[in-house]
Amino acid sequence: MSMPTIDHEVTGRDGGAAGLRARVRDFYDAYYDALDDVRLEDWPDFFTEECLYRVIPRENHERGYTLCTMQAESRGMLQDRVTGLLKTQMYAPRYYRRFPGPLRVTAAADGIRTRHNLLMVQTLIDQQPAVVLCGVCHDRLVESDGGLRLAERVVVFDSEMIANSLIYPA
Amino acid sequence: MSMPTIDHEVTGRDGGAAGLRARVRDFYDAYYDALDDVRLEDWPDFFTEECLYRVIPRENHERGYTLCTMQAESRGMLQDRVTGLLKTQMYAPRYYRRFPGPLRVTAAADGIRTRHNLLMVQTLIDQQPAVVLCGVCHDRLVESDGGLRLAERVVVFDSEMIANSLIYPA
Amino acid sequence: MSMPTIDHEVTGRDGGAAGLRARVRDFYDAYYDALDDVRLEDWPDFFTEECLYRVIPRENHERGYTLCTMQAESRGMLQDRVTGLLKTQMYAPRYYRRFPGPLRVTAAADGIRTRHNLLMVQTLIDQQPAVVLCGVCHDRLVESDGGLRLAERVVVFDSEMIANSLIYPA
Repeated sequence: MSMPTIDHEVTGRDGGAAGLRARVRDFYDAYYDALDDVRLEDWPDFFTEECLYRVIPRENHERGYTLCTMQAESRGMLQDRVTGLLKTQMYAPRYYRRFPGPLRVTAAADGIRTRHNLLMVQTLIDQQPAVVLCGVCHDRLVESDGGLRLAERVVVFDSEMIANSLIYPA
Repeated sequence: MSMPTIDHEVTGRDGGAAGLRARVRDFYDAYYDALDDVRLEDWPDFFTEECLYRVIPRENHERGYTLCTMQAESRGMLQDRVTGLLKTQMYAPRYYRRFPGPLRVTAAADGIRTRHNLLMVQTLIDQQPAVVLCGVCHDRLVESDGGLRLAERVVVFDSEMIANSLIYPA
Repeated sequence: MSMPTIDHEVTGRDGGAAGLRARVRDFYDAYYDALDDVRLEDWPDFFTEECLYRVIPRENHERGYTLCTMQAESRGMLQDRVTGLLKTQMYAPRYYRRFPGPLRVTAAADGIRTRHNLLMVQTLIDQQPAVVLCGVCHDRLVESDGGLRLAERVVVFDSEMIANSLIYPA
């Protein structure tokens, strides 16, 4: 018997969904800790084997263009990206730290859809911190290999151009 | 029989209040999503018919002055404001994104009082993002028309002056 | 009978831990409100009598050096610090506001360990707000005098140098 699948947001009124919200929150805590700690080698493992990772300017995203700053379509491509980053140490020393905004969680037919704002702050060693990315993440999580994993992560940032200096993952 | 009404903060120890906290959180998720997505026409509907919306510098607020950057006292005035914003497109293209801090929720005699910090980041199309407002929101929510609505929203920002460029709602 | 003590993270799947998470969240809400409101005289009381408060650059922290920007080892030393701040009003008027990131809470043998990112924004009266500290807090909370208190707070910031202007507590 097939039933129409209706997306429903996992809101506070939906008591049974508290566990799901908490699991998703724990997932992002681990995700952002790994990136903030520069454990880049752990990054691809947060994604499914086949996946979409995209960093795209807001204007292109809203017009339906797919021209973007970075795109990967598999865990292997993410791993290649990490290898490239670890091999090339030509950049001035810097740190990134990520400040995600409140999480919205929606149970959908094809997984768990989430939305949250993201502020990424860059600190060059001898300078004051500066906002390097301000945007919103539209993600889709699925159960895979015994845990939640990103099947899709689209980071839409509020600018036509992104700093050349944004060389690490969001 | 009349009982003295004592405000009590809706803290974590207060198990029965988890549902209320979650409803308030969902309210602000929707509120900030609407503004970040520039669905300005939805904004007045987050308020009650009679309401107070005020954006005021910290110094004036703490001294008890009411001289402020913007004030509206009804949903109609908020609608007028939106109409004005939608008609005048003379500004350089820009995006705003709001990062609310942790929510404090207090059940009071006259509704639900909330407090949270607010960071508002502005991105001009071809520039790096910059913090345009840093402040704290003192709000009062009430049940109205089958949902929570803002009866009062006072945004106190940490500066004597506010950027001329802050033309969209906080 | 002695049992090995195993640290376990207080994640969303661990239902019984929801109360603890909520208490810790309430603790930080009160902590940051006190600092944002410049109620400096309340600050030492968030710590235990014997305690460690340290503000340290990331590079020193990661290399195991203890050379730091500020350190106090007792509530009395924190009180001295506050007295010094309240007596010297030689600084240009400014406000600080703190934006903590998501909280990670771990029950450990020696108390409750927490980790969260911290963004501190400074506003000089007639200027735009600016990020003055971006870092991560590694704290340890214990039950003391009928409530949670900080036995340890290590604020690791992403820079070799910290702004001279950061004169108030993090």
